[in-house]
Amino acid sequence: MTPHIHTIHHHHFGWDNSLTPDTHAAPGDTLAFTVQDASGGQLTEHSSVADLAAFDFSRTNPVNGPVYIDGAEPGDALKVEVLDFQEGGWGWTGLIPGFGLLADEFPDPWLHLSRYDREAVQFTPEIRLPTRPFTGTIGVAPAEPGLHSVVPPRRVGGNLDIRDLTRGSTLYLPVEVPGALFSVGDTHACQGDGEVCGTAVETAMTVQLRFSLIKGANFSAPRFEVPASGLAPVDQQGYYATTGIGPDLYRAAQDAIRAMIDHLGREYRLDPPLAYALCSVAVDLKISEIVDAPNWLVSAYLPRSIFR
Amino acid sequence: MTPHIHTIHHHHFGWDNSLTPDTHAAPGDTLAFTVQDASGGQLTEHSSVADLAAFDFSRTNPVNGPVYIDGAEPGDALKVEVLDFQEGGWGWTGLIPGFGLLADEFPDPWLHLSRYDREAVQFTPEIRLPTRPFTGTIGVAPAEPGLHSVVPPRRVGGNLDIRDLTRGSTLYLPVEVPGALFSVGDTHACQGDGEVCGTAVETAMTVQLRFSLIKGANFSAPRFEVPASGLAPVDQQGYYATTGIGPDLYRAAQDAIRAMIDHLGREYRLDPPLAYALCSVAVDLKISEIVDAPNWLVSAYLPRSIFR
Repeated sequence: MTPHIHTIHHHHFGWDNSLTPDTHAAPGDTLAFTVQDASGGQLTEHSSVADLAAFDFSRTNPVNGPVYIDGAEPGDALKVEVLDFQEGGWGWTGLIPGFGLLADEFPDPWLHLSRYDREAVQFTPEIRLPTRPFTGTIGVAPAEPGLHSVVPPRRVGGNLDIRDLTRGSTLYLPVEVPGALFSVGDTHACQGDGEVCGTAVETAMTVQLRFSLIKGANFSAPRFEVPASGLAPVDQQGYYATTGIGPDLYRAAQDAIRAMIDHLGREYRLDPPLAYALCSVAVDLKISEIVDAPNWLVSAYLPRSIFR
Repeated sequence: MTPHIHTIHHHHFGWDNSLTPDTHAAPGDTLAFTVQDASGGQLTEHSSVADLAAFDFSRTNPVNGPVYIDGAEPGDALKVEVLDFQEGGWGWTGLIPGFGLLADEFPDPWLHLSRYDREAVQFTPEIRLPTRPFTGTIGVAPAEPGLHSVVPPRRVGGNLDIRDLTRGSTLYLPVEVPGALFSVGDTHACQGDGEVCGTAVETAMTVQLRFSLIKGANFSAPRFEVPASGLAPVDQQGYYATTGIGPDLYRAAQDAIRAMIDHLGREYRLDPPLAYALCSVAVDLKISEIVDAPNWLVSAYLPRSIFR
């Protein structure tokens, strides 16, 4: 990390445009954020599933900020360049009752801890995932008054969980209030598209971001740029993919993940919770076809290179 | 193409398990199929939009076959290895009224012709897409009697439009009737995930496939393997991505494509029909997040390397 960068330690819960900014930044400024893991420090590298079951949800998903961006006005886009991460070394992946794409099929709490470094996450002794750090939650305050839950993403950003917002990427957020009121949290060491079990490899990190403005961009939702260097290096052995087919994309995605859990059990002897969690951290959900009515097709892509 | 391979020229329309097989094949056999383009030859490389507007839809999407696979029984998976393609040299991309992800916003017929070779599709003088040939429609007969439309994909395959089923890939199809009754058609020179305007670069090709069986696989839907060599070589300059956010994945995908059409107009001066068609042939739809209720997030990825 670059030294002497102003660092934001203050965090809050949820989105609210009446929050007092923790700091101001001018376009062109770089700031660092000491992001807690999504449990808000309730889990440690010695935690067991009992700690997950005892979660105080009011303390989950803290975000650092808000930062007031000088000159930002509604209609602008806040440009956020993702410069660097200082990784925390360990992370957790959990199944939280009632949460996730297959919540009804996985009713019990479950917790899995992983060590990682800048190169790789050692998910199990046999499964090694490339480290691709990103901030799951990144956004600005909505125009609508009041406190808004941190869980759903919105057109102003928030819990986007876009796995490709890694080192070298650029995010554009629609500004809805003066100063934008930017906050960031929920750092992940790696994740598959969809984050299907509801958690990634959840971990604390320090994040370095640079801010600027595109005046009057009038974007309808976040947009982003992914540099070639930010792309996954897991393609080298190809993919095994399952599909879900039907008139509802959500159910098709569920079916594709169910089939992948079946595949991971047959081929790699993974038990269902571990297979489901592996889907969340390593399997990509793609919409292969969304025009051949009445049935759409969702594919789940497993990179073969993650198995030793 | 390998010489002296038995070639299937016969085609039919729709899926029906009462069709008489055109040929038999034993596990391990390789067959070639002379696939017509999705218009069934109604369009030529000299066609204009008037020819598209005059389409006889009863003649669209012919499939070659059916092939009876010796020993195939319900519950098996038919393994189809995609060995090779002999490309047709030109293709068409069309907007067909009433069809496609943004059908209501593009009510008029529109036609675009491209030349291509084994390396690239010259989509416009400025836009060059890597050729990635695949069969849009590939499947076996459903157990349910009667004639079934070729348009929607089903658990037995059909109009899957999975862009990664290119040279070197392997597809597994659930068998529902004795002999499987395999057919293939709808060859594409390239496509983005989602095929959002409803057509890809539609083109005639000869396809070479090898068949075998996995007895008693009991797959719920098609599965497939993508070799490393089959992956897109367009990552080298990274991506620009737009998003759609909301409780309905279909609407979120529409929003992401609307935003990409906006981007292609702002940055590259593409008019809306051409931008929409470019999304269909080059932009990938990914489900970035499907757990942060009530809002899911769909991203549309534009590879930057396609612009000269």
